[in-house]
Amino acid sequence: MSQNLNAALQHARENRDEVLIELRDLLTIPSISDNPEHDGDVRRAAEWLLARLKRLGPDRAQILETAGHPVVFAELLAANPSAPTVLLYGHYDVQAVEPLDAWETEPFGPTIHGYNLYARGASDDKGQIMAMIAAVEAAKAVGPLPVSIKFMLEGEEEVGSPSLGECLKAHRGEFACNLVLNTDAGMLGENTPTLVTGLRGMARFTLRVTGPANDLHSGGYGGVVHNPIHALCELIAGMHDADARVAFPGFYDSVRELPEEERESFKKLPLNDEAFLQESGSPALWGEPGFTPLERQGARPALDVIQITAGSPKAAIPVFAEALCTIRLAPYQDPAKVREQVEAHLAAVAPPTIRWEILDFSGFPATLTELDKPGVQELMDAYRTVWGVEPAYYPSGGSIGAVGQILEILGAHSLLTGFSLPGDHIHGPNEKLHLPTWEKGISALVHFLYNLAE
Amino acid sequence: MSQNLNAALQHARENRDEVLIELRDLLTIPSISDNPEHDGDVRRAAEWLLARLKRLGPDRAQILETAGHPVVFAELLAANPSAPTVLLYGHYDVQAVEPLDAWETEPFGPTIHGYNLYARGASDDKGQIMAMIAAVEAAKAVGPLPVSIKFMLEGEEEVGSPSLGECLKAHRGEFACNLVLNTDAGMLGENTPTLVTGLRGMARFTLRVTGPANDLHSGGYGGVVHNPIHALCELIAGMHDADARVAFPGFYDSVRELPEEERESFKKLPLNDEAFLQESGSPALWGEPGFTPLERQGARPALDVIQITAGSPKAAIPVFAEALCTIRLAPYQDPAKVREQVEAHLAAVAPPTIRWEILDFSGFPATLTELDKPGVQELMDAYRTVWGVEPAYYPSGGSIGAVGQILEILGAHSLLTGFSLPGDHIHGPNEKLHLPTWEKGISALVHFLYNLAE
Repeated sequence: MSQNLNAALQHARENRDEVLIELRDLLTIPSISDNPEHDGDVRRAAEWLLARLKRLGPDRAQILETAGHPVVFAELLAANPSAPTVLLYGHYDVQAVEPLDAWETEPFGPTIHGYNLYARGASDDKGQIMAMIAAVEAAKAVGPLPVSIKFMLEGEEEVGSPSLGECLKAHRGEFACNLVLNTDAGMLGENTPTLVTGLRGMARFTLRVTGPANDLHSGGYGGVVHNPIHALCELIAGMHDADARVAFPGFYDSVRELPEEERESFKKLPLNDEAFLQESGSPALWGEPGFTPLERQGARPALDVIQITAGSPKAAIPVFAEALCTIRLAPYQDPAKVREQVEAHLAAVAPPTIRWEILDFSGFPATLTELDKPGVQELMDAYRTVWGVEPAYYPSGGSIGAVGQILEILGAHSLLTGFSLPGDHIHGPNEKLHLPTWEKGISALVHFLYNLAE
Repeated sequence: MSQNLNAALQHARENRDEVLIELRDLLTIPSISDNPEHDGDVRRAAEWLLARLKRLGPDRAQILETAGHPVVFAELLAANPSAPTVLLYGHYDVQAVEPLDAWETEPFGPTIHGYNLYARGASDDKGQIMAMIAAVEAAKAVGPLPVSIKFMLEGEEEVGSPSLGECLKAHRGEFACNLVLNTDAGMLGENTPTLVTGLRGMARFTLRVTGPANDLHSGGYGGVVHNPIHALCELIAGMHDADARVAFPGFYDSVRELPEEERESFKKLPLNDEAFLQESGSPALWGEPGFTPLERQGARPALDVIQITAGSPKAAIPVFAEALCTIRLAPYQDPAKVREQVEAHLAAVAPPTIRWEILDFSGFPATLTELDKPGVQELMDAYRTVWGVEPAYYPSGGSIGAVGQILEILGAHSLLTGFSLPGDHIHGPNEKLHLPTWEKGISALVHFLYNLAE
């Protein structure tokens, strides 16, 4: 088998430029999933990927329709029926690109500067998808596939995967697998290949504060009625206490305690205060006392209002003001319980001068991947071989809706990893992919597939 | 003269339907001054009014260009050279109409239901302009004009009259007058003709709070850096103390103290707590303790954030968050001083985890009209005659940028009055004009012109 491994690594190296050109083509499609104007583009990306997967010579390949954006499915069987089946997960949708004027290149005009490829989706997640395709293609080109492969490429990751669960239920048998490789979770640094051992969950809702029956002239009513914008700001300000802790009653009660050995292992990671400060560009760090930034990011919950919609330049006190709130949930927090805590808090503190309501609540819990799960050691070995260092493991602060749904419906654990770097500006302007890391990632995936077969 | 007066009143009554049809035509022009897309419509309204004024047979009539929207000017000389010159002020621009779905009729499709005419600008201020034109037309139709008339109709009132000052300076002589009648200030109730004895001033600025260098993924940085949206909300929440008083140091120090006799006279007005509560539709009243709603509205300063622009539905901590803040200034407050107070407050309370700045500050002071000013008694007499009640006087909470500029540049005091009612929803959806009140207003203006000549 090692003869095939070496040939596959060689093939991947030789194929690198062609795959890069293909990736650039995929990155020109503005497959923004949270904007109905781009629905056609999202579908175009799915069809692009179906055509690309068909070139691998799959046993099956098709687009699975859902209530929302489709899922691209392909299956490639190993010669050896006892070889495990690995489900490769990725998502072809991307975040919106505003503010456009903060981009130094066109978000959908992929541009290479030095070692980086700049485009929306370069790192999150189209580059990762193409790395997986490149690795499978290399293995398939040089001999029998060492493991059976299934691809599951969804188009709604950036909006919380609302249709994926139904699709998994409808195709439970087709997606059956022994383990899932999810390359959407990133790595800690260029020289630190990483296994993410946990993802935060998510609760998302709109807080609407309502005041007067009509927009009121601020000359006639300023100082006379409570402006819903002020009341909303007061409620948001009250969501954290003076120590930057979330103020909802019981909010931290069920949060998983960090074992001391995990905290010790985190200290060895290259993510200290200085690294977070520099990467963020913020004037100072901020957050819950008693935890490092890495612990706050990966193992503690966080509340962020991500949008306020309120008022207009008209000199008026508006009828209502809204905040779109997100809570990154730590392991063991229950979204439904958190909703109760939010409501109990608001009921206790909201003044009688306005009305408030919670709209469009949705949520999913955090996930944990312990180190004894199938595939963990094979992936770690692949990383040791390619990078020549001991890989890191830590819980990431992000949230991937698919992971919990796959575990619940398919019964399969996800290995959370990937080749995006902390400085890749995913979700922000000037998103990029570091190409030397991407190439190492392709090699590592080739090793991983052969490691699994042994 | 009383023969002419009666003939003019008769003429105005007979002409009422025709003027109403003309008003409906003027109301179809969406002359929104704060939106460059409507610049052509604003000019169209100016040209419509110039044509209408020319039908009065003026001695002069022209459009005066400014750096922004134009001013419509017309002059009609009295036969008697000792008759005073009255400058009639109005504005033909209107506020934006969002939220559109809150309108029950088309904002620019004027519609009569019962006694009301619904349209953006019906009450603020096109209806008032047409009332002044109708009164002058009636007087001119039946004999020599009892007083000389100048019209000054501007197109930037709703954006703070930024170009009016330069125009007044360039045409100081042409606008020279003995007094100004400004019908943009409204009345307290259908049966309460009103002289507004004061207008609040205005300070307007944007507070921008900046945090990270790029939009940050809220999974990677939630709980690690201070979200500028939260920091902005905390700063806004801190702008009022627990008693709903503005928290800036020294903010109330220079505010004019309300004389006890004014407070007594306010108590007779039909504007009690219940009236404000019902008119606003708010769940409760709110504001500075120790003052009635009417006092808070007219004689005390008020801070209102009228818009927040922050974030997006993307799960990101944004680079910045902005609030558009307005402060209605009470008499004797100095806008420049208030700016210093705002900055001193923010410097004292803003945390080191974000940066803040004040952008686009502008302001003008409040104005007062004492009862001994020229024309006050003639206007009060006209109201007594038409309504058969003692007119009210009180300081309004609104702000009209032109009033201070006219006083400063032309040296003329403005009589602040008008025929819009508290329930006319000016600046909001479903703005309307109460037609019986408007007709009484036309009659009162006819009386006023003849009273001035006596």
